[in-house]
Amino acid sequence: MSGGAVRELVSTGCRVLAANGHSDLVWGHLSARDPDGRGVWLKRAGLGFDEIGPDDVQLLSWDGELLAGQGPVHLEHHIHIEVLRARRDVAAVVHSHPEAAVALAATGLALQPVGHEATFFTPPDVPRFDRTGDLIRTSELGAEVAGVIGPHNAALLVNHGVVVAESSVERAVFGAVVLEKACRAQLLAVSAVGADRLIASPDEEALAKRERCYSARQVSLGWQYLVRSLPGPAAAGVTS
Amino acid sequence: MSGGAVRELVSTGCRVLAANGHSDLVWGHLSARDPDGRGVWLKRAGLGFDEIGPDDVQLLSWDGELLAGQGPVHLEHHIHIEVLRARRDVAAVVHSHPEAAVALAATGLALQPVGHEATFFTPPDVPRFDRTGDLIRTSELGAEVAGVIGPHNAALLVNHGVVVAESSVERAVFGAVVLEKACRAQLLAVSAVGADRLIASPDEEALAKRERCYSARQVSLGWQYLVRSLPGPAAAGVTS
Amino acid sequence: MSGGAVRELVSTGCRVLAANGHSDLVWGHLSARDPDGRGVWLKRAGLGFDEIGPDDVQLLSWDGELLAGQGPVHLEHHIHIEVLRARRDVAAVVHSHPEAAVALAATGLALQPVGHEATFFTPPDVPRFDRTGDLIRTSELGAEVAGVIGPHNAALLVNHGVVVAESSVERAVFGAVVLEKACRAQLLAVSAVGADRLIASPDEEALAKRERCYSARQVSLGWQYLVRSLPGPAAAGVTS
Amino acid sequence: MSGGAVRELVSTGCRVLAANGHSDLVWGHLSARDPDGRGVWLKRAGLGFDEIGPDDVQLLSWDGELLAGQGPVHLEHHIHIEVLRARRDVAAVVHSHPEAAVALAATGLALQPVGHEATFFTPPDVPRFDRTGDLIRTSELGAEVAGVIGPHNAALLVNHGVVVAESSVERAVFGAVVLEKACRAQLLAVSAVGADRLIASPDEEALAKRERCYSARQVSLGWQYLVRSLPGPAAAGVTS
Repeated sequence: MSGGAVRELVSTGCRVLAANGHSDLVWGHLSARDPDGRGVWLKRAGLGFDEIGPDDVQLLSWDGELLAGQGPVHLEHHIHIEVLRARRDVAAVVHSHPEAAVALAATGLALQPVGHEATFFTPPDVPRFDRTGDLIRTSELGAEVAGVIGPHNAALLVNHGVVVAESSVERAVFGAVVLEKACRAQLLAVSAVGADRLIASPDEEALAKRERCYSARQVSLGWQYLVRSLPGPAAAGVTS
Repeated sequence: MSGGAVRELVSTGCRVLAANGHSDLVWGHLSARDPDGRGVWLKRAGLGFDEIGPDDVQLLSWDGELLAGQGPVHLEHHIHIEVLRARRDVAAVVHSHPEAAVALAATGLALQPVGHEATFFTPPDVPRFDRTGDLIRTSELGAEVAGVIGPHNAALLVNHGVVVAESSVERAVFGAVVLEKACRAQLLAVSAVGADRLIASPDEEALAKRERCYSARQVSLGWQYLVRSLPGPAAAGVTS
Repeated sequence: MSGGAVRELVSTGCRVLAANGHSDLVWGHLSARDPDGRGVWLKRAGLGFDEIGPDDVQLLSWDGELLAGQGPVHLEHHIHIEVLRARRDVAAVVHSHPEAAVALAATGLALQPVGHEATFFTPPDVPRFDRTGDLIRTSELGAEVAGVIGPHNAALLVNHGVVVAESSVERAVFGAVVLEKACRAQLLAVSAVGADRLIASPDEEALAKRERCYSARQVSLGWQYLVRSLPGPAAAGVTS
Repeated sequence: MSGGAVRELVSTGCRVLAANGHSDLVWGHLSARDPDGRGVWLKRAGLGFDEIGPDDVQLLSWDGELLAGQGPVHLEHHIHIEVLRARRDVAAVVHSHPEAAVALAATGLALQPVGHEATFFTPPDVPRFDRTGDLIRTSELGAEVAGVIGPHNAALLVNHGVVVAESSVERAVFGAVVLEKACRAQLLAVSAVGADRLIASPDEEALAKRERCYSARQVSLGWQYLVRSLPGPAAAGVTS
């Protein structure tokens, strides 16, 4: 995949996040690993997810230096660089502040599979980064986030937001979308009966569902739908 | 009703479901019994409810073989085939993952008539399929779902979604729409005061309401409204 | 006000209700007293609130006979006829099934002024009609609803919906809009801390607020805004 | 900044409030201090936040006399005059009735930082004005509100609404937007697990986050995004 294709994919992913509950003014970001190993393609700062086009995606070096692209760089680029540095199997990272996931993190509850969506992540429970709810503004903090994620595909940054780390932009964005849906459904059920009475899939079932509901093929179909559903003119990155 | 008319009706029903809280990316389906007994007309896989036109409705044999139409077949077609096989009085089946119904199923609470909508289903309570929250991927599992539905017009698939089985596409889609409304209203009330303090229609009243609020004529009027309210150009299947 | 003006006003009011949380497919109605005493102008059956134009408003006699207009008559016209018969000071009646008000009625909680809106109604608490949650399908039941309303401007029909009875179409529709807002805000607060900890305006304050927040002038301004905010081409019934 | 520029900025701010959860028919207002010290520029009465253009912003003297502009004056202009009189460091005031903030005030709970947003305000907790939930209809009541705000940048008017007082229109509007988001997230979390189990940023962390998440630069970027996101033709007050 060329740099141009990565930029187009990241910008499409940003607009999918915007259209699916991840908008928070100009905050939140999406990155992809550079196919040539030069560093990380990251949404620029100062614009909302819904505003991002290919020209708004920057290439940062592994030291956070701006190699290509224009505009300000997100202060929290450390999340992306450190997660991608630590995990060779990860090719894309979402960081955002979706309402239900932020609320669930503040409840202290484990994510539980009320429907399909949570099985993309759990078991085991989505790890929590709770050293600080402040911005991830240094490489050390970024590395700590990466450490909390460990081998998992997401973490909740308590009192802050979410990180989803996946093997492709498509999967990272898809994961962020279903994570927010999962958290909202769980909060809805728990608010009615309390956490102790919640009926959720046991671990073995959840693992089996992950394979089936979210096979590579299903995730790809879900992603393509998300792109087709974007407002505005025909979007990039979808094979019709 | 010809195959063409069935296809048109199923596609209209899919778009009604999309516009009324049943969209879940490319998942969820609607089917109708073939008027000539050849099998089941089912929404194709890989597209969202909102994207379905008449050409996206497939004819499957009673063995799940693709007899007409194009595109991939939903893995869970077994739900439709087995419910329609078991129930000669059923002509259409909805399966979807609406948020409030999924949450209500995870609370373990009985569906109770907070307003009119739940009386389309209860009493008795909507049966629960809880053998698995995983996909209904075999004819055996489909037959078990059909067994749980028994003579009823719906079931909640715990940690998964809903099935509505009715005597026509119009009624199945209408039922799915009011089921989700019923669940949301109940969760709203229960979250405020708890399940024990909920005021709901007693059974006798609910049964009387079902006859009156949801007479054949009222359901037909409701369906026609849903179709008129679809976004985009004038929809098929409504007599003005 | 001529019959034509009443029809236009009722149809405008129906569309305002639709745009403010009172849509329930083809159910729910709005009526106005005939200025010449012949009976009641009522939205016709079979259409949703959003679909009503002046030609969709019927004149019914005090016996429920169709005197002018076309289309089917709502079975529950008894609510309108009996409330207007019992209350010479009432000129318009809304009956609808808004989600939060239906949920609040099912909690058994008194309506309490969490913000401004509830003071349009309480104190004293909005009376509850709980003889049946079924349709108001006879003049006797309509008269009972009127009896429960008594001198008040609204009642909650438990497990059914709301009735708002006011001195004009503008006020009845405005009241229905703020009733639903009041119920939603109360449910939001009560779901967080429980009904016992809710902080609400004491009665004396609520009464003073009713005079001030909802003076004739303020209600008129609110109504005019609601009409200006209707989707589609310029609406009737507003002096610019 | 000229009077014309202030009018344009206030009108833009009103439309931002409308688009971000602060609409309440024709109620709620935004003001800015006159750069020449003559008094207060205030949104006129009788129109909703979404309807305000530059010509709908009035100049009031420090005695509440209409010096420029047309249309009725908001009865509650005392809030604006008295807060701006008491606080030379404040240049703009929002008063509105957003649903979640009104509900949170009615719970009696302290605002707690579930995510970033609340740190714009707390610690210390947003002060509560609870002498009355009625309108702020006299200069004495306005002065009392100003007294409750003290050195803070907001107050909750219990059973009424919110006041945000900031050093610019941009900051006041931005603050109002994040206050409502903060309250909604907190209610969502508290409804699930109760206030006692809520995980929120400790004070020191919240203060650090305020400096970082809501630096002058970040708030400016947030404001500019809000303006760019307004519906309709290109908005005033944003440097591209």
